[in-house]
Amino acid sequence: MAASVWRRVQAAAGRQLRLPRPHSRSSGSSVGAAPVADGSEEPGHYALVEFSGKESIEAVQRASTIPGLQHECAVPFKSRFFNLRNNHLGSQTAIHPSVLRLKQSVISLNELLQNISGAESIDEQLYTVLEEMQLTEENTRLRFLVCSLLNEIAAAYFPECSIRPFGSTVNNFGKMGCDLDMFLDLDGISGRNKTKPGGAFSVEYQTKRVASERVATQSILSVIGECIDQFAPGCTGMQKILNARCPLVRFSHQPSGFQCDLTANNRIAMRSTELLYIYSTLDPRVRALVFGIRCWARVQGITSSVPGAWITNFSLTMMVLFLLQRRNPPIIPTLDQLKAQAAEKDVHIIESHDCTFASDYKMKSSQNTETLEDLLQEFFEFYGSFAFNKMSINIRKGKEQNKPEPSPLHIQNPFEQALNVSKNVNQTQLDRFVRAARESAWILQQEGLKHPKAEPWGFSALLLPNSQTSMGKSKKRRRQPASERIKNLLDSLKANKQSTDNLSRPNGHQKIIPIVR
Amino acid sequence: MAASVWRRVQAAAGRQLRLPRPHSRSSGSSVGAAPVADGSEEPGHYALVEFSGKESIEAVQRASTIPGLQHECAVPFKSRFFNLRNNHLGSQTAIHPSVLRLKQSVISLNELLQNISGAESIDEQLYTVLEEMQLTEENTRLRFLVCSLLNEIAAAYFPECSIRPFGSTVNNFGKMGCDLDMFLDLDGISGRNKTKPGGAFSVEYQTKRVASERVATQSILSVIGECIDQFAPGCTGMQKILNARCPLVRFSHQPSGFQCDLTANNRIAMRSTELLYIYSTLDPRVRALVFGIRCWARVQGITSSVPGAWITNFSLTMMVLFLLQRRNPPIIPTLDQLKAQAAEKDVHIIESHDCTFASDYKMKSSQNTETLEDLLQEFFEFYGSFAFNKMSINIRKGKEQNKPEPSPLHIQNPFEQALNVSKNVNQTQLDRFVRAARESAWILQQEGLKHPKAEPWGFSALLLPNSQTSMGKSKKRRRQPASERIKNLLDSLKANKQSTDNLSRPNGHQKIIPIVR
Repeated sequence: MAASVWRRVQAAAGRQLRLPRPHSRSSGSSVGAAPVADGSEEPGHYALVEFSGKESIEAVQRASTIPGLQHECAVPFKSRFFNLRNNHLGSQTAIHPSVLRLKQSVISLNELLQNISGAESIDEQLYTVLEEMQLTEENTRLRFLVCSLLNEIAAAYFPECSIRPFGSTVNNFGKMGCDLDMFLDLDGISGRNKTKPGGAFSVEYQTKRVASERVATQSILSVIGECIDQFAPGCTGMQKILNARCPLVRFSHQPSGFQCDLTANNRIAMRSTELLYIYSTLDPRVRALVFGIRCWARVQGITSSVPGAWITNFSLTMMVLFLLQRRNPPIIPTLDQLKAQAAEKDVHIIESHDCTFASDYKMKSSQNTETLEDLLQEFFEFYGSFAFNKMSINIRKGKEQNKPEPSPLHIQNPFEQALNVSKNVNQTQLDRFVRAARESAWILQQEGLKHPKAEPWGFSALLLPNSQTSMGKSKKRRRQPASERIKNLLDSLKANKQSTDNLSRPNGHQKIIPIVR
Repeated sequence: MAASVWRRVQAAAGRQLRLPRPHSRSSGSSVGAAPVADGSEEPGHYALVEFSGKESIEAVQRASTIPGLQHECAVPFKSRFFNLRNNHLGSQTAIHPSVLRLKQSVISLNELLQNISGAESIDEQLYTVLEEMQLTEENTRLRFLVCSLLNEIAAAYFPECSIRPFGSTVNNFGKMGCDLDMFLDLDGISGRNKTKPGGAFSVEYQTKRVASERVATQSILSVIGECIDQFAPGCTGMQKILNARCPLVRFSHQPSGFQCDLTANNRIAMRSTELLYIYSTLDPRVRALVFGIRCWARVQGITSSVPGAWITNFSLTMMVLFLLQRRNPPIIPTLDQLKAQAAEKDVHIIESHDCTFASDYKMKSSQNTETLEDLLQEFFEFYGSFAFNKMSINIRKGKEQNKPEPSPLHIQNPFEQALNVSKNVNQTQLDRFVRAARESAWILQQEGLKHPKAEPWGFSALLLPNSQTSMGKSKKRRRQPASERIKNLLDSLKANKQSTDNLSRPNGHQKIIPIVR
């Protein structure tokens, strides 16, 4: 590392990370950097430096100093984050070795539209969307690195614990820029639930006692959150959300850009992660359709990055899975069918909830030969006319069932069956979704939009900002020839590039688009 | 340990502790215990178990379980505190091996009066008070053990830090039951204030930056306080007093019974501790007189265990030292004289305060041959007529000086010379002290009380509960023959045993005692 020519590089020495080496360098380390003014507080470029042995990291740590600051003070907590300083300013700024820089950013909508415009079919468009939006291998590894850095903080008090990712990071449905959900696993702590030895005496640790496991979880998360907040470099914006159904701490890990949620003893969420992963592997159309629908929903303002009464990506995924179970022949099995094939090792009863399903489901390749284009059309038509007022979506049975309670949208939690996954959704948001589905079903039916010569065409025509703000109550409808409306939409898209530049935010620009029934 | 016959013992395996082995046992361990109902939450007896090697502690830890509780949950933090359970209840409760039980409690006033009644001189009485009240060696070691247990918590994040006792625990003026003041020393963290290596590059830890060292201290104490509060068995009543001049966390360590104060980077307090220690070693009369005066002050309600406008033990110690500097010939040197003999290694400038003094002061044994009886009398007379309204007490110069500010009692802080050690003291409390000093001077002058045949006699006659509650304002005085008054005092003492049973609390019983001028 000392051979590097850069003024300053913020380096995370990550043992667990196996990033491809960009080009051969001595001593098994890789450095990526860009010159940054010395001593400035602006974030520099980060280099992931992989060492062949743990001793090398310790050697770097021994040689490192704690910054002596003129007007501030450093909290002397030692982690695996370092700043590399060039002590001779300005001498070598011209050399830029061709280090591989890993793209960690989210693709913009315009870029995505451009990339899918050259496709030859709607199926190809959707697979391209999947390719462009899914987590890269490097980004996934970066997420594991962040877990390992936080693990060091938690392990200070609970040496046998581990922090592991769950949710979109590892369920095969994660897109670039998605939150990093982490799980503090304390079950590995030895001596818990151990049966007492048979002798006359037994020794127990003296511990703090609290009223329930929930209180213990809150207490542990609170302290670890405090440590992250006060000591961990690059972690900012700590929020302790300890009274949530599942207590968590939320913070931003600035070097990686990840928004992090850390929970503990969240075993059911781990099983949900595994279930989604298994569904994702059963048929290639599963992921492509889920990514397509999520992308569409974000552009349409149906989902949002801020919490609220919006439909969530998890709910949309459930809706896609449900649709694929309902096809004839079905593309994926119901949860009950997965459970029926469970082996003994797959049996999981967590807090009296049955979380059992086959971890290696053997399915004859589905007889269903529908294209993604068919399924996309079916999704919009199915949910454009679904009896949301009466029926509940249920992937366990693969059949709609009567709603047990009057929430506008009811999607049964696959494991905690008394819970509604979409309890947060209000009628306005559900209406927004239904209208957008109907509108999209109509657009997809336009023969002129089905061919790559149209502009936009196919899936692109659905990725146009939408809004029903003034329609819900006024019921006012304008009618225009379809081609003219599509052209207007395209123009408005071009005129408002900035507002649609990033898929990770809901579109700020609102247009009135009439509904066609 | 498995050979023990007790149902349950809470054991702290303390490597640093070198308690005398009560009787020979195998494998270098000692156990002291008493039967306690199994599973009960009432504090049991504690055993300090010393192992010959660290591996043995790890072996105990490996064999220990985390309690599985029926209606509660254990926070699975592993420390060196264990519960030993007898799995066969009721079988061996009759065996009581003669394990040495270390007395860790505070002597009661009645016991103390009894113990000094047989002395042959007031000097012998005062040395007995010293013997009875001072910290035992075992209690001091127990304090070091508590520091080492807390050190493990702090070292989780700052492996190079150390927690050390300061103040009365180690300044040679500590009495049984005194608070345990601890100091989190972060200066040992390597890489701090290290000069950058000469090469082209240097590596720094990336750290959180805060506005000042004070903010860093607050942040570190806050997190460590949180850990102690949530995880550490036996630590209760956590208070974070982070906005104090010297930020601290305060809590009770129940197994040892110590009230603990943990501060950080409190270097001046460390020097004060060393200074008092050095003064304590210069002449045997120093400690005896300080202990005597403190004991007297507590019985008289001049000092208190709760914070307030009371005179503190530290102020009283300063007053005794000042008196001993003012004797002719002096018994101890002034701080300036100690500084004049300082070697190079003794030079300490902390935050621009001169904390320099000779650590091995060579003094010809004092020419002063006054007895403790003389000095006790002198103390009461000197402070009974001291010009507190105009003059400041100053152990640096060994001379009273004009008060720089109008606090009722002004004792210059020996190192932070702009500060008044007794700024908290109000006029009422100062008056209480002066009246008690005059009263005691008068009592000591009574020839009839100077001989062991009187009852009470000598120093015992001063350890009678006192109160000036109704005198401060009314100036009402009753006159009685001295012998009758003393007899009344004694009667009142006997009648109110309970209220004077413990020296660690100010006497709740208040009697009106006239002042004689």
